[in-house]
Amino acid sequence: MQWYFVAALLTILTSSQGILTTLSQSNGGYKYDYATVPFLAEVFKLIVSSILLWREYRKLPNVRMTTEWKSVRLFPIPSIIYLIHNNVQFATLTYLDTSTYQIMGNLKIVTTAIFFRLFLRKKLSTLQWMAIVLLAVGTTTSQVKGCGAAFCDSLFSAPMQGYMLGVVSACLSALAGVYTEFLMKKNNDSLYWQNVQLYMFGAIFNMLRLLLDDFSGGFEKGAWWQRLLNGYTISTWMVVLNLGSTGLLVSWLMKYADNIVKVYSTSMAMLLTMVLSVYLFNFKPTLQLFLGIVICMMSLHMYFAPANMLVDLPIPTKVASATLDKISVEQRTDS
Amino acid sequence: MQWYFVAALLTILTSSQGILTTLSQSNGGYKYDYATVPFLAEVFKLIVSSILLWREYRKLPNVRMTTEWKSVRLFPIPSIIYLIHNNVQFATLTYLDTSTYQIMGNLKIVTTAIFFRLFLRKKLSTLQWMAIVLLAVGTTTSQVKGCGAAFCDSLFSAPMQGYMLGVVSACLSALAGVYTEFLMKKNNDSLYWQNVQLYMFGAIFNMLRLLLDDFSGGFEKGAWWQRLLNGYTISTWMVVLNLGSTGLLVSWLMKYADNIVKVYSTSMAMLLTMVLSVYLFNFKPTLQLFLGIVICMMSLHMYFAPANMLVDLPIPTKVASATLDKISVEQRTDS
Repeated sequence: MQWYFVAALLTILTSSQGILTTLSQSNGGYKYDYATVPFLAEVFKLIVSSILLWREYRKLPNVRMTTEWKSVRLFPIPSIIYLIHNNVQFATLTYLDTSTYQIMGNLKIVTTAIFFRLFLRKKLSTLQWMAIVLLAVGTTTSQVKGCGAAFCDSLFSAPMQGYMLGVVSACLSALAGVYTEFLMKKNNDSLYWQNVQLYMFGAIFNMLRLLLDDFSGGFEKGAWWQRLLNGYTISTWMVVLNLGSTGLLVSWLMKYADNIVKVYSTSMAMLLTMVLSVYLFNFKPTLQLFLGIVICMMSLHMYFAPANMLVDLPIPTKVASATLDKISVEQRTDS
Repeated sequence: MQWYFVAALLTILTSSQGILTTLSQSNGGYKYDYATVPFLAEVFKLIVSSILLWREYRKLPNVRMTTEWKSVRLFPIPSIIYLIHNNVQFATLTYLDTSTYQIMGNLKIVTTAIFFRLFLRKKLSTLQWMAIVLLAVGTTTSQVKGCGAAFCDSLFSAPMQGYMLGVVSACLSALAGVYTEFLMKKNNDSLYWQNVQLYMFGAIFNMLRLLLDDFSGGFEKGAWWQRLLNGYTISTWMVVLNLGSTGLLVSWLMKYADNIVKVYSTSMAMLLTMVLSVYLFNFKPTLQLFLGIVICMMSLHMYFAPANMLVDLPIPTKVASATLDKISVEQRTDS
């Protein structure tokens, strides 16, 4: 499977996530407990990965699986980072208005690239760094509140703590992504085995979160397992399946592509959601959305197109082809 | 003189033009006839170029000057294009609101590059084309009307004729620029002699325009020469000198650099004016201005930085250096 096919599928599914979530609401609110959705998505991913691992094991009994505690103990770490990230996000929102919060979210594109460079020691060319900055600028542009917006939140006027927490949040998000890529690539273990470990801990940590919420709420709504499927409709199940599927695609990309591919997929998904919202929910298309799309398309091409498609390289290639001619002449003379 | 020094000077002077024009107003209006400013600027440029040509002639009596009618008759053409352009602009403004008109003005960046390619047969790399589009996108981004703007003009709702005239206007502006570059580069004539011809016709056409305005206004305000310097203050003269100087710098760039350099200079000037306005006139800095500046800076670097600074070129350069080693070895063996 080619990575760009998986990336395109991730873009489509991620953008349907926003649409499906909106469709699963009734009268602007959720009839079900939204916090149960990620837990069920983790369970779904765990079941799918277990089945796939079982099928793989039947075909190749010597499938690569590292079962030492030294390796297994690394797999809860992404879940722990996400748990901290969730709480930081919650704290950030007490300082920042939603518009500034959304704008600051684009920072994770840049932090992911920096962590990718620092921790995974992947080198990016100057043009690729510029492409990353442009991707963040492009997604931000599309979110600029236009003339005539219903609410005018004053940008850049929130307390300093809000911005600092926004930066911390972007770093934690990047750290979780880069750490997962490290986990998936550190050995040649079966992807399904790595997934089983990842989602096992994912399900456990999501369960703990639901339990903690119940404790902090004094069990007013009852225990989480009692209301697990309350108010679930077909569209709620679609949200669960969709979230689970995007998770599986992200895992695949972490092993066979990288974090930057994932960042591009999800950024493009955000733009696609905005475009689809224009058609589905009669949102007003804005100039800034159009500009944002152009910027992100340029960024995509700058990052992934091979160098010789972007710039003319007259002198080195001429010398190079001259060499190749020369070498082939010499070989013919030798034989 | 290096072209980037001239380009930087042009950026500074063009951006002071906006500031000076605002300063020359009193109570939000002009006490002088603004239409006389371009005429006096043409006269200023003609005088400066004549003096410089005279000095050059005293040093080198055989200074290159083509005086055949076949050549001289080409020099009024830019003035004629500008005259048509002026009228098209006027017609455009009857269909488009000022905000949409300003946004459409950025189209001339792209039309200039297209005409530059078509008529002057200059090749641009894919990355340079992308840089041009990003420059237009960047300047447009900086002009997006923000949340809370005083007037909300509805973008993209003007009659079709307005947009078509906007495109015609962008083409005429590009044509004038590209034609001037062709004139300045078509032979090795002295720059000052070319300028004298250009500004002679420039002064004549500006005079004709003033006269036509008088006729169409039924000489209500008297003949133009009677009110030429009415209400002129020091700052009005500064506006004239500034406009004249930017014209001279543009001429220099047309001969020794090109239209794309000029387009970058004036686009950067627009951004600089907006930044200076934040300090000088207490304009509110917007997120879109910041994003626009980042996009234009990226574009500048993409267009002008040498390819090897932007992308890693491992394979061709290795082969190339291997060749050079091989050649030097062979030369040593030969001798």
